[in-house]
Amino acid sequence: MAQDDGLRDGERAIKWCGASDARLVYIGRIRTPWTSRKDCPRQGRHDGPLCRIEIDEAWADALEGIDAYERLEVLYWLDHSRRDLVLQSPRDDGATRGTFALRSPMRPNPIGTSIVRLVEIEKTTLIVRGLDCLDGTPLLDIKPDRTLFIPPAPPTRGDYEIENP
Amino acid sequence: MAQDDGLRDGERAIKWCGASDARLVYIGRIRTPWTSRKDCPRQGRHDGPLCRIEIDEAWADALEGIDAYERLEVLYWLDHSRRDLVLQSPRDDGATRGTFALRSPMRPNPIGTSIVRLVEIEKTTLIVRGLDCLDGTPLLDIKPDRTLFIPPAPPTRGDYEIENP
Repeated sequence: MAQDDGLRDGERAIKWCGASDARLVYIGRIRTPWTSRKDCPRQGRHDGPLCRIEIDEAWADALEGIDAYERLEVLYWLDHSRRDLVLQSPRDDGATRGTFALRSPMRPNPIGTSIVRLVEIEKTTLIVRGLDCLDGTPLLDIKPDRTLFIPPAPPTRGDYEIENP
Repeated sequence: MAQDDGLRDGERAIKWCGASDARLVYIGRIRTPWTSRKDCPRQGRHDGPLCRIEIDEAWADALEGIDAYERLEVLYWLDHSRRDLVLQSPRDDGATRGTFALRSPMRPNPIGTSIVRLVEIEKTTLIVRGLDCLDGTPLLDIKPDRTLFIPPAPPTRGDYEIENP
């Protein structure tokens, strides 16, 4: 049950002193079918509804070559999220877990990440499946799925470094 | 070849107007063997060197339960990166690709993401393999790998929504 400070039984928050170490720029918006937090999937699915990633015109050319990737990693800003929780009770039953042991939207830097299937490109809009966020969520970044990406630049020393256990 | 504005042949930048849509808080530091950008791996490897993720004391309790996950998703701030590039030439040969078709550190919001193998926990430090970033990189977030995580909270309507092509 929520207490006066909005915490459920067992949950704990730190004293939040603000955030000013680095600054983000929104590069577009995400359109999904979900307008209420309670309807958003806990995890996106690749056979889920079509969603639209609308990229700001200034970044249009940054999409060049993106059609080579069937799957993309998408980063977005969960702008309705509380940021000060260290212990959370996902079932509201008094049992808690640490924030870093959860994929809850409530975290010190509420950055959501999803792997989406790219279905179609319409100018600066990507049509995808696999998102889980609210309609209108600000977009932060798009990258090729790490498992599909082969770096075009020559390898570095670090690429060969291995270490036995 | 780099021009006066630091661009390689074929590369293009936008006029950067700053970033102030949202603010980040650093929650720790990452220690790796790489002190120069040219040595960092292009992609981390799970048999790579041991690295340390040092979490600030304020977030210590947020680690509770993290030992249940063999792999973690780590987000960090690539604080040396140029942010205004839309077209990049990874081989410096005039051939370019859009920023969102690359996993280059140079992007409007230079957030690096890696999937790491959790080797050991020492108080508020995680010992891991699979990172690719410079020593001293600011830490933004840690979450269970999406493929290992089962949400403890009850499913939502969205979890069941599918849509035929």
